[in-house]
Amino acid sequence: MKEFGIGLLGFGTVGTGVVEGLRRNGDLIASRLGVRPVLRSIGTRNPTRDRGVPVAPAKISANLESVVDDPSVDIVVELMGGKDAALTMTRRALARGKPVVTANKALLAEHGAELFRLAAEHNTDIYFGASVGGGIPIIRVLREGLVANRILSIHGILNGTCNYILTRMEQEHLPFDAVLREAQDNGYAEADPAFDIDGIDTAHKAVILAWLAYGVHIPLNQVLVEGIRNLSAADIRYGADLGYRVKLLAVVKRHDDGAVEVRVHPAMVPRDHMLASVHGVFNAIMVQGDLSGRGVFYGRGAGREPTASTVIGDIGDVMKNLLGGSARRFRATPGAESVPLLDRGQARTRHYLRLALRDRPGTLARITAALGNHGISIASVLQQEQGTGDHVPVVIVTHECRERECQAALQEIAGLDVAGSEPVRIRIEE
Amino acid sequence: MKEFGIGLLGFGTVGTGVVEGLRRNGDLIASRLGVRPVLRSIGTRNPTRDRGVPVAPAKISANLESVVDDPSVDIVVELMGGKDAALTMTRRALARGKPVVTANKALLAEHGAELFRLAAEHNTDIYFGASVGGGIPIIRVLREGLVANRILSIHGILNGTCNYILTRMEQEHLPFDAVLREAQDNGYAEADPAFDIDGIDTAHKAVILAWLAYGVHIPLNQVLVEGIRNLSAADIRYGADLGYRVKLLAVVKRHDDGAVEVRVHPAMVPRDHMLASVHGVFNAIMVQGDLSGRGVFYGRGAGREPTASTVIGDIGDVMKNLLGGSARRFRATPGAESVPLLDRGQARTRHYLRLALRDRPGTLARITAALGNHGISIASVLQQEQGTGDHVPVVIVTHECRERECQAALQEIAGLDVAGSEPVRIRIEE
Repeated sequence: MKEFGIGLLGFGTVGTGVVEGLRRNGDLIASRLGVRPVLRSIGTRNPTRDRGVPVAPAKISANLESVVDDPSVDIVVELMGGKDAALTMTRRALARGKPVVTANKALLAEHGAELFRLAAEHNTDIYFGASVGGGIPIIRVLREGLVANRILSIHGILNGTCNYILTRMEQEHLPFDAVLREAQDNGYAEADPAFDIDGIDTAHKAVILAWLAYGVHIPLNQVLVEGIRNLSAADIRYGADLGYRVKLLAVVKRHDDGAVEVRVHPAMVPRDHMLASVHGVFNAIMVQGDLSGRGVFYGRGAGREPTASTVIGDIGDVMKNLLGGSARRFRATPGAESVPLLDRGQARTRHYLRLALRDRPGTLARITAALGNHGISIASVLQQEQGTGDHVPVVIVTHECRERECQAALQEIAGLDVAGSEPVRIRIEE
Repeated sequence: MKEFGIGLLGFGTVGTGVVEGLRRNGDLIASRLGVRPVLRSIGTRNPTRDRGVPVAPAKISANLESVVDDPSVDIVVELMGGKDAALTMTRRALARGKPVVTANKALLAEHGAELFRLAAEHNTDIYFGASVGGGIPIIRVLREGLVANRILSIHGILNGTCNYILTRMEQEHLPFDAVLREAQDNGYAEADPAFDIDGIDTAHKAVILAWLAYGVHIPLNQVLVEGIRNLSAADIRYGADLGYRVKLLAVVKRHDDGAVEVRVHPAMVPRDHMLASVHGVFNAIMVQGDLSGRGVFYGRGAGREPTASTVIGDIGDVMKNLLGGSARRFRATPGAESVPLLDRGQARTRHYLRLALRDRPGTLARITAALGNHGISIASVLQQEQGTGDHVPVVIVTHECRERECQAALQEIAGLDVAGSEPVRIRIEE
């Protein structure tokens, strides 16, 4: 049986999973595909650390270039993360005409356009199935399974750390900080969690999904990104009273006029929505296609073995391409129509607002008037007796309105002498 | 841009969807794939009926052979259903080296092995993505996305008609017959619904999934198949009281000793299980891979446009294969290890039992003794005051036991003088 040599860059969590997956299921994979992946060499900064998987020490090297250049390596699998060495090595492999499989979303989100050009120039492939959704083959589903569809919208829970924190906050009525510490203790959050909890990781993935759906590279700095750091247990509780759960969502949408919208923020989702029942570290992506209708793809969004599952799936594709001499089977950049980005202020959603208001006659009337001044109508109001000091919390759910209108209304409200602390605003997606 | 000619066999619901999908999204598909599918001819028994999509009458013919043989047709898309003409025409196309795309699960489940041999002999492809799951690209996910995994189990809701009926029975507390009539009136059930409600359609799909997962063609007559015809509203209600929903499930599993189990039957599923929140005509498939972990794939399992979405996705694959000169990219028969089938009596589940028992002292003790005689222990008992005539309904949930033990115990119970009408038994899957 034909064999292809695998060179691994990075020997951390996912790298270990790939080595173990190839070892454990190599025969099965070969029998399914008719070609066999063979691990040839591993490049890592720390070659001597014991990862608990049996690899001949001679295969492991601190010299990343030597792995890429190894003539017995046909496919380079980049699992280092980061953007420095990963970028240099990916460029090097592609320039030598070697296909690259990567799980590196930051690399793709920020340097994807360049890397795909480079792959095309050298008639080779870059596969990135594990960059979004971990063990969920969402990239394959979007690029191949739904190739016939205009993608109307994508809603994704793409970060397991955030979803774990939000699930625990809701279930245990705990504040953010306490749950974050717990998540760090359990290994579900990094020591420096900013990348996850501030929404950057989700935004990288949203950029990749938007690109697959609409063929446009949207610069990260043009994506509206809000994390979960400032969410309070009170809002999660009020949301629950109103029939919502709070999830950190990536929203990718195309409007009738062609404009594309990409945003990442906490959102209230109706409790009977499929995405509302995604708990803990799981991920899920809801895709609305013009033909397929609504589909939801759910699974483990990270972790050693799930991510390795998708990485090895990509290795399978690349091996078939090499075997058939048919690289560039899927265009890195799909349609690549020039698509306008939606002006952020034009995004339309319903809103959950929590205001701290002075408890005196006429207050609510002034608030509703302020909202009305900006064309915002109210769907429901929740006001309970107990207050915090001089102020009473009032929760308002609006009908759909534009981001811009909502911000202007909140600004007007902040200027009223009845308003206490900064109003809280959470968008609603249904 | 390179074009490939499409010949369509069958111009019913799905055929119309494919024609409309190619017309509406043809440019988008071509821009994504770099090749263009062009509809060349359509074979149908009724060429003159107006389907509401614009097709030049000259392209439509009652002569199916002429479509297959048309030299401008590169890819034959079989959407006739049934096993007679569909089988003849699929054989004819493959024998001419023309790749076939089909959505015909009956054809595949019963003649798959032959057709895949034929495709291999003539170095061409047969793609069948739409045979299971309609608009959910589950075939692609299993065959490509999860190629690195040993598949531990698959649980599927694969028939929209049954799931619609079960959803309505639960939500409206209606009996089966009334909901079936309603489903027929709404177009969600056929005039002759046997194929769906007796589980045959689901069994065909289960056979295809088992084959993808384990490389074995399991004859339909070796699959345990029970439909939903005899489900009573009472059991759905009792199930709800116990925290379960009733779903028609396909279960495909591999045991530690290597034996494969395939069964189709109504099952009680815990309400917080992902599959329990699949309502109405939607389908979902839960796949447990040894690396990927648990994944769920949800969407529209039938219908004109969702099925067309997947059919056109397959056309995309076939075009790429033709373009690259690399047919047979995926082996029709994966691993094809010789796998033993699990003896039906060995299948292990928990059970929901509803018995009609004489309301007199010691009755329950005799029942639990009968269960105990066969090694079955009881997890919970539900006995309410109101009875039907002389008999009281008693609901028992067992711990896990073998099919064989459960049947033997029910037989022993039927022989006791305390038992009324035939006991009801519904397996529990969690």
